[in-house]
Amino acid sequence: MLSKADIKYIKSLQVKKYRKHEQCFIVEGAKSVQELLRSDFETVMLLGTTDFLSSNNIQLDSRVEEISEKELEGLGEFQTSTSALAVVKMKPNMPLMFSPNEFVLVLDDIRDPGNLGTIIRTADWYGIFKIIVSPETADFYNPKVISATMGSFTRTQIYYTDLPAFLGNTKDLPVYGAFLEGENIHRTKFGRGGLLVIGNESRGISESVEEFVTQKITIPRFGESESLNAAIATAVILDNIRRGS
Amino acid sequence: MLSKADIKYIKSLQVKKYRKHEQCFIVEGAKSVQELLRSDFETVMLLGTTDFLSSNNIQLDSRVEEISEKELEGLGEFQTSTSALAVVKMKPNMPLMFSPNEFVLVLDDIRDPGNLGTIIRTADWYGIFKIIVSPETADFYNPKVISATMGSFTRTQIYYTDLPAFLGNTKDLPVYGAFLEGENIHRTKFGRGGLLVIGNESRGISESVEEFVTQKITIPRFGESESLNAAIATAVILDNIRRGS
Repeated sequence: MLSKADIKYIKSLQVKKYRKHEQCFIVEGAKSVQELLRSDFETVMLLGTTDFLSSNNIQLDSRVEEISEKELEGLGEFQTSTSALAVVKMKPNMPLMFSPNEFVLVLDDIRDPGNLGTIIRTADWYGIFKIIVSPETADFYNPKVISATMGSFTRTQIYYTDLPAFLGNTKDLPVYGAFLEGENIHRTKFGRGGLLVIGNESRGISESVEEFVTQKITIPRFGESESLNAAIATAVILDNIRRGS
Repeated sequence: MLSKADIKYIKSLQVKKYRKHEQCFIVEGAKSVQELLRSDFETVMLLGTTDFLSSNNIQLDSRVEEISEKELEGLGEFQTSTSALAVVKMKPNMPLMFSPNEFVLVLDDIRDPGNLGTIIRTADWYGIFKIIVSPETADFYNPKVISATMGSFTRTQIYYTDLPAFLGNTKDLPVYGAFLEGENIHRTKFGRGGLLVIGNESRGISESVEEFVTQKITIPRFGESESLNAAIATAVILDNIRRGS
């Protein structure tokens, strides 16, 4: 059974300050929790309905509790995640190793958690599992981010760091960034690897990051919108990168 | 000055039932209101800060009120729309005329207002201004939809109708729909026009609509995600349709 302290603890993990202090986050909903259990994340506590626990082969050394849908509803960020919830250990924020033959995403202040989650889900579709993000980007462990990834968070390595400092150390790699006056992505010859920078939702790529962009690219426009949503732009560019491969 | 009744009226338009009854909706934020004022929508009431009203050339016969940022904050759905808000007449829900040489979007139960708004913004980028939607699709006039379109709602014609009945009357047009087992969109020869059906966020295209799909297409996957967000899928398909044109 869940104690009042358990409930308070789980709810506190909706807040970044407490996640950071506890180094734990929550994963909600049957699908996300199933992907979590297949991943290398360490699950600290698993709460599931009778149905969820009996229909999944759960092999955990940590605490597992049977819980009603009603109890689950009050616990998480989302009212719809009514069959499972897990408390999970964060991974340390560490530099990522990557080869010049792979594409890596670089996010320059993506502030909206839904956008960040959707970008992670989309990158995972296109086989990109490594993402470098600025400190001002939304928190990867925010429940809204985790939920929007639809399980892709389990396959993604993320590293929060100062982007100009990071980009200053990647001298020979092509750095792609979307601008209004770049090369049409329908005609760009993307190589076998490099960095793709996605800018902030309203102001785009910041000046201090722009100076490291070696290849300015543009998504051609056929209508009237002034811009595309950041996650949409990411998807369209990744599709163009992959169609050549 | 705004009366208590004005405030109550404006706030009521956040709710679909009252929008339907009044046949009016609200547009929030400087950019969206500027696009509105350039469009053929009928603005019933315009509220703006001193700055907004003086820096835009406002020529309206209808009521215009100067209002403080603080007053505006409490009125709309969004706390960030602190310089302008308009009450606008809905357009009648009417069948759309289109030629066989243009692409038209068909949305089969897109439930999330943010997704619908992003789809409209993306379609506008790709030069698609006509959208046919099922009755269960989110309300075009929902403030979250209007906001997510970033002004594209002013250029979009939308028609809510029963999709199987509508599709039954479009016999010679190609009807494209995304399925897991369709033709790779990187190799599809899209013609000069047709209908592109986008399915619901969780269950995809419904069976009653699927039977009208003449060309099953697939976005190729290079990684592990099980699916893409509906707005992301729309963008990637439209980019592939347009690159051939």
